[in-house]
Amino acid sequence: MTPTPASSSALVDIQLGDRSYPIVIGAGLIDRPSTWEGLPRAASALIVTNDVVGPLYLERLQRALQPHYARVLHIVLPDGEAYKTWETLNRIFDVLLGQACDRKTVLFALGGGVMGDMTGFAAACYMRGVPFVQVPTTLLAQVDSSVGGKTAVNHPMGKNMIGAFYQPVRVVCDLDTLQTLPSRELSAGLAEVIKYGPIHDMAFLDWIEANLDLLLARDASALAWAVRRSCEIKAEVVGQDERESGLRAILNFGHTFGHAIEAGLGFGAWLHGEAVGCGMLMAARLSERLGYVDAAFVGRLTSLARRAGLPTVGPALGAQSYLEHMRVDKKAQDGDIRFVLIQRPGQAVVQGAPDALVAEVIEQSCRS
Amino acid sequence: MTPTPASSSALVDIQLGDRSYPIVIGAGLIDRPSTWEGLPRAASALIVTNDVVGPLYLERLQRALQPHYARVLHIVLPDGEAYKTWETLNRIFDVLLGQACDRKTVLFALGGGVMGDMTGFAAACYMRGVPFVQVPTTLLAQVDSSVGGKTAVNHPMGKNMIGAFYQPVRVVCDLDTLQTLPSRELSAGLAEVIKYGPIHDMAFLDWIEANLDLLLARDASALAWAVRRSCEIKAEVVGQDERESGLRAILNFGHTFGHAIEAGLGFGAWLHGEAVGCGMLMAARLSERLGYVDAAFVGRLTSLARRAGLPTVGPALGAQSYLEHMRVDKKAQDGDIRFVLIQRPGQAVVQGAPDALVAEVIEQSCRS
Repeated sequence: MTPTPASSSALVDIQLGDRSYPIVIGAGLIDRPSTWEGLPRAASALIVTNDVVGPLYLERLQRALQPHYARVLHIVLPDGEAYKTWETLNRIFDVLLGQACDRKTVLFALGGGVMGDMTGFAAACYMRGVPFVQVPTTLLAQVDSSVGGKTAVNHPMGKNMIGAFYQPVRVVCDLDTLQTLPSRELSAGLAEVIKYGPIHDMAFLDWIEANLDLLLARDASALAWAVRRSCEIKAEVVGQDERESGLRAILNFGHTFGHAIEAGLGFGAWLHGEAVGCGMLMAARLSERLGYVDAAFVGRLTSLARRAGLPTVGPALGAQSYLEHMRVDKKAQDGDIRFVLIQRPGQAVVQGAPDALVAEVIEQSCRS
Repeated sequence: MTPTPASSSALVDIQLGDRSYPIVIGAGLIDRPSTWEGLPRAASALIVTNDVVGPLYLERLQRALQPHYARVLHIVLPDGEAYKTWETLNRIFDVLLGQACDRKTVLFALGGGVMGDMTGFAAACYMRGVPFVQVPTTLLAQVDSSVGGKTAVNHPMGKNMIGAFYQPVRVVCDLDTLQTLPSRELSAGLAEVIKYGPIHDMAFLDWIEANLDLLLARDASALAWAVRRSCEIKAEVVGQDERESGLRAILNFGHTFGHAIEAGLGFGAWLHGEAVGCGMLMAARLSERLGYVDAAFVGRLTSLARRAGLPTVGPALGAQSYLEHMRVDKKAQDGDIRFVLIQRPGQAVVQGAPDALVAEVIEQSCRS
C-alpha cells in the first residue's frame, strides 16, 4: 500500500518533448510568489474564470500575477457546463481582440473543468495558439483536466465535439481551493480518482478505500497524494499515447455510459464526475457479464462509490436512449460503441459488446 | 535562370516529421485514380466546397473518391471571404455530427484559400482533429495555402484571428482547375508567386518576368513550374520555422499593408492577392526609404505587378486607418507593427519602422 507522504506539496512532470510542463500540487500556491515565476514573458495576461470561483480567488490571482505582466485582464463567465459553448468562447475572443492582446498573451484558466477546457481551447485558437496556465479549483479538474491537453467546447449535438489537443505551459493545483468546494463536487472528483484504480493500479484503489474518510474530511496530505498519484497515472498513460489512438482510451472508463447519462438528462443535470462514477459501475457490470471480473469486484466498486457520496443507480432513460447517445459519442467508430472494460482488476481493455447485453446491463443498473 | 520543365506534373514533399505530406502538382489529377490512393482509411469522406467551384468539380471529385469511402458526403457553402466565419464553420460541424461522422472521417477542401482555411480548421477541431486533404482550385491557394498548415476563420474584429496550425495529409493541385479561374483571380494568385522572388530567390523573379505572358495565357508547363517553385520556396522557409516564431514571417511580405487594405475596405472588396500585391509595393517603397533597395528595384516590381494585372495604387483610406489596422494585426507585438522589408533583392528582414515614415509611404502609394 502506498504511504501517504508527510508533505502536502509535490511536482509531477508531464513529459511531452518540447510541450512538457510541470503540475505543481500544494497548499497555498496561489499566494506564493514562486508559483508564478518562469512563465512565458508577455505584456498581457488574461484570467478566465466564472461567477462562482471568481469571487473567491480572482483578486488573489490578479495580485499574484501583477509583478509579471503590465496588464492583468480578466473575464468572468457564467458558471456551468451549459455555458461551455462557442458563444461563451467568443466572449473570450472579444476581450482578447477588444484589448488588442497580441500572440504572446498568456491565458489563465481559474476554475473547474469547464474553465480549463474552454480557456485551453481559446488559447489553442487565438491567433493560432497562445500559452495558457491551468489553475484548477475542483478536485475533478485537478486529477483529470490537468493532464492530457484535451480542450473543447460542446456542440448542441454532442459534448466536447469541437476542440483541440493543446498543452498548458504549467498547471497549479492549489489544494486550499478544495476547502471551498461543495461536497457534491468533491464526490464527483473522487469518481475520477477512484477510476485510476481499476484501470491501472489496484494498490491505489486499496489506498483510496483506506483513506476515503480523510479525503472526505479534506485532509491536505490525503488530498495531495490523491491528486499526485492520479496525475502520475494519467501522465504514464497519456505519455504513451498523446493523441488517443489506443491505450489512452482506457482513461475513458465510465465515460461512455457517463456521457449517455449526461446527454440523456441534458448536460448539467448531473455533474460530469457523478455521471462517470455511475457509468463506471455500469462498465464494471458489463465486464462481469463478459466474464472478466467477478461480482465481488463490482460490489467493491459500488460500495466505494456509495461511501464517496456518488449516485450508484443510473437515471431510467431507457436502454435505447443510452445506446443512441453512445453511438454518436466521439469514441464510437462508424457507429460501433467502444467500451472501456476491466479485463482483470488493474487492467482495462477497449472493445465492443452486443447491444442486447449492454441493454440488460443498463436496465439492471437503473433499478438496482 | 531556372528552366521551364518539359513535364507538367511534379511532387513536392513537405518534411515535417510525422506530419510530413506530399503536394502533387499536375494536369488532370482529379480524374486520375492514383491521385487518391493511400489516404487514411475511413468509412466517410466529406467534401467541403462552395457554390462557385462545386458546380465545376464536385461531381468529378465525388466519383473519384467513391471507390475509397463507403459514404462520400458533401456540403456546398456560399463563396467568399465574407463567409469565412464561425457560423459557416458550424455548418460543417452540423453535417459531420448530423451524419454521425466518426473521428476517422476525412475532410476534402475543394476550392480556394477560404475553403482550405475553413475546412482545415474544421478538421483541426472536429473531435479534436480528423485528417484533411486540400484540393486547391485557385492559383493563390495552390502556391500559398498548400504549404504551412495555417487554418483559420475571421472574427468581426480581425482576419484569421481564430485558427490552428494543422497540416493536411495531402495536397492535390490539379492545374486544369486554373483554366476556369477568372482572370482577376489568376492575377491575384500571381501576386503570391511574384512575392517569392524578392524575399528568397531573384532567379525565380527573372523567370517570372520572362514567362509572365505564358502564365497569363495559362500555359500548363509554365503554371506547373510557378506552382512547384513557389511551394518549394515556401516549404524551405516553413520547414525551418513551422510555427512562425521567426524566419517564417518573411512569407508575410506585402501582408501587413495588404491586411490593412482588406480590413479598411471591408474583407472581400479586394481579393487577398490583390491586397498583397499592392502591399508588396508599399513594403518595397518602405524598404527603399530605409535605404535597403533602390528605386529601380521598386520600379521593377511595380512594372511586373502592373503586367500581371494587379492594382498598383492603394485605396485612399488615409494613413491613420492603415496604421490602426496594422496595429491590431496578429503579427504586431504589443502594438508595434512588424514589417517584412527587402534588405537586398532576394533577402527579407522583419523589423519596425517609424509611424511618420510609414504614413508617408502610404500617402505616396495611394496617389502614385
